[in-house]
Amino acid sequence: MRSDADSPLPQRPVIAVVGAGAVGAYYGGRLAHHGHDAHFLLRTDFDAVRKYGWTVRSCHGDFKLPADSLRVYDDPAKMPRTDLVLVTLKTTANDQFEPLITPLIKDNTSILTLQNGLGNEERLAELFGGHRVMGGMAFVCINRVEPAVIHHIAEGLVTMGEFARPPGPRVKSVAAMFETAGVPARVVDDLALGRWEKLIWNIPFNGLSAVLDQTTDLLLGSPPGDELVRAIMEEVIAAARGAAGVDLPRSLIESRIELTRGMGPYKTSSHLDMQAGRPMEIEAIFGYPLRRAQQGGVKTPLLWALYRLLKLRDSNRSGA
Amino acid sequence: MRSDADSPLPQRPVIAVVGAGAVGAYYGGRLAHHGHDAHFLLRTDFDAVRKYGWTVRSCHGDFKLPADSLRVYDDPAKMPRTDLVLVTLKTTANDQFEPLITPLIKDNTSILTLQNGLGNEERLAELFGGHRVMGGMAFVCINRVEPAVIHHIAEGLVTMGEFARPPGPRVKSVAAMFETAGVPARVVDDLALGRWEKLIWNIPFNGLSAVLDQTTDLLLGSPPGDELVRAIMEEVIAAARGAAGVDLPRSLIESRIELTRGMGPYKTSSHLDMQAGRPMEIEAIFGYPLRRAQQGGVKTPLLWALYRLLKLRDSNRSGA
Repeated sequence: MRSDADSPLPQRPVIAVVGAGAVGAYYGGRLAHHGHDAHFLLRTDFDAVRKYGWTVRSCHGDFKLPADSLRVYDDPAKMPRTDLVLVTLKTTANDQFEPLITPLIKDNTSILTLQNGLGNEERLAELFGGHRVMGGMAFVCINRVEPAVIHHIAEGLVTMGEFARPPGPRVKSVAAMFETAGVPARVVDDLALGRWEKLIWNIPFNGLSAVLDQTTDLLLGSPPGDELVRAIMEEVIAAARGAAGVDLPRSLIESRIELTRGMGPYKTSSHLDMQAGRPMEIEAIFGYPLRRAQQGGVKTPLLWALYRLLKLRDSNRSGA
Repeated sequence: MRSDADSPLPQRPVIAVVGAGAVGAYYGGRLAHHGHDAHFLLRTDFDAVRKYGWTVRSCHGDFKLPADSLRVYDDPAKMPRTDLVLVTLKTTANDQFEPLITPLIKDNTSILTLQNGLGNEERLAELFGGHRVMGGMAFVCINRVEPAVIHHIAEGLVTMGEFARPPGPRVKSVAAMFETAGVPARVVDDLALGRWEKLIWNIPFNGLSAVLDQTTDLLLGSPPGDELVRAIMEEVIAAARGAAGVDLPRSLIESRIELTRGMGPYKTSSHLDMQAGRPMEIEAIFGYPLRRAQQGGVKTPLLWALYRLLKLRDSNRSGA
């Protein structure tokens, strides 16, 4: 049976979580904790998790995944073929899609990427066929605090949709599976709209926070930062419209800024990456949208500059 | 006798150096060391200099200015009226022009500002009359290494011209005075051209280095930084032309970048200020040129953003 958007997942799907950092461990962990047949591919914490299992401290209720109940792997060749691949790799590892995911694929395997930014579904579709691909956005504040210990601080909603087509039974069954496992999930009609809606926040706040090493409250604490954030948001709206035919309402600017003011001294993921000397997700969050804008003939000088400032930050980081 | 550009300075002028940080101490110090009647107004190092004099370690020859031969002041009211006021204040103190300089002025007093950026001559002209004002650019690498100790590392040329008119006997006599005291000095026909020529370097390199906390070699070490520097230089050229009628040759872009590559891991003054938690000269180097461009209808989105990034850096610096 060929995987497609019109068929729901099997009743008890075999699930592979590819890239079990904090996000993969949390969402995959909720599924495993609920009794799903989840298999985790990980690298950094492989030894620790195999030995101690995962400890998840969550604002929605702590839980443990004991080592003897967990199926963790450091090599996809050792994993079963799956019904659903949950991609939670950092986008900086997207060049590993082919070797990591190919061994997990059979005829009816579906793929859901929960990664940041743009271009992930497109790349997965190129490699494995667009009919397999769904995309989702994790609105969650989550950290790995030490090996095998995850701290889920706030939020947790996942929104998901089909890649380049309207939602059908498949994505609805995936969302239902998340809901049953204790993860708020919502199906979106238009995944592209959802992606760009998320970028209108990520591009200014991830970008400026990482360039300047400043939390979001500092960015919004004076007119220069407020003006920069708004001007970058305007460019994202123009890029979404001109490059992807996505109409973002201008009211998003005000509402996202208000939301962010309420978050206090928040550190974006790019800011945390920068401070820790880890590679930032520059291409997915900034480079891909910029190239889309350029292809669509949309002028985005601030995004152009921000992308380059981040590349400089990244290439000259300690240890790079 | 009214001061004007057609009369040379008196034979042995009374000189006030206003703001004797590193630049003022060095240039004023060369004049004093040569026997000129120089009076120094300073704040930070007043006690140290009054006690120990100045020690100048210079690539052009060390010298000392013993305390008993120096005339240093912490209050302009105690100083004599002067023939020449040498303004070497940091531009962040330009709001002190009136109280600091007014007591030094008599009918024939001339004023030479050696400050960075744009707008200094204009402000002095507003306050004291344009006929008094000359401007100069110090191409020098100089630091105050400890109280009363100045380290002159490299270069040292001063170029100077009359404000808003061609050079005449006055500015030539000032340049000759510098030359005689051991400071290479050159008279420029067009001070505005000279100011913008300097900005084509200062705006990209001071700006990016302070935003990113990176030395100039890192900025030029990869395509993203090279592209940013060039794009900002293009904006400065457009601003100079559209806002001030100043035609900067495009060949400056290449030559300034080559020059900078030869400078190695150089720290700009804004970078040093940022690292030390001192206010940066944002308005003179970035804000004034940006406002000129806006008044001239020239679009400079990168300069617009750079100015705001620097304001954020500055307002959220440690201790600000």
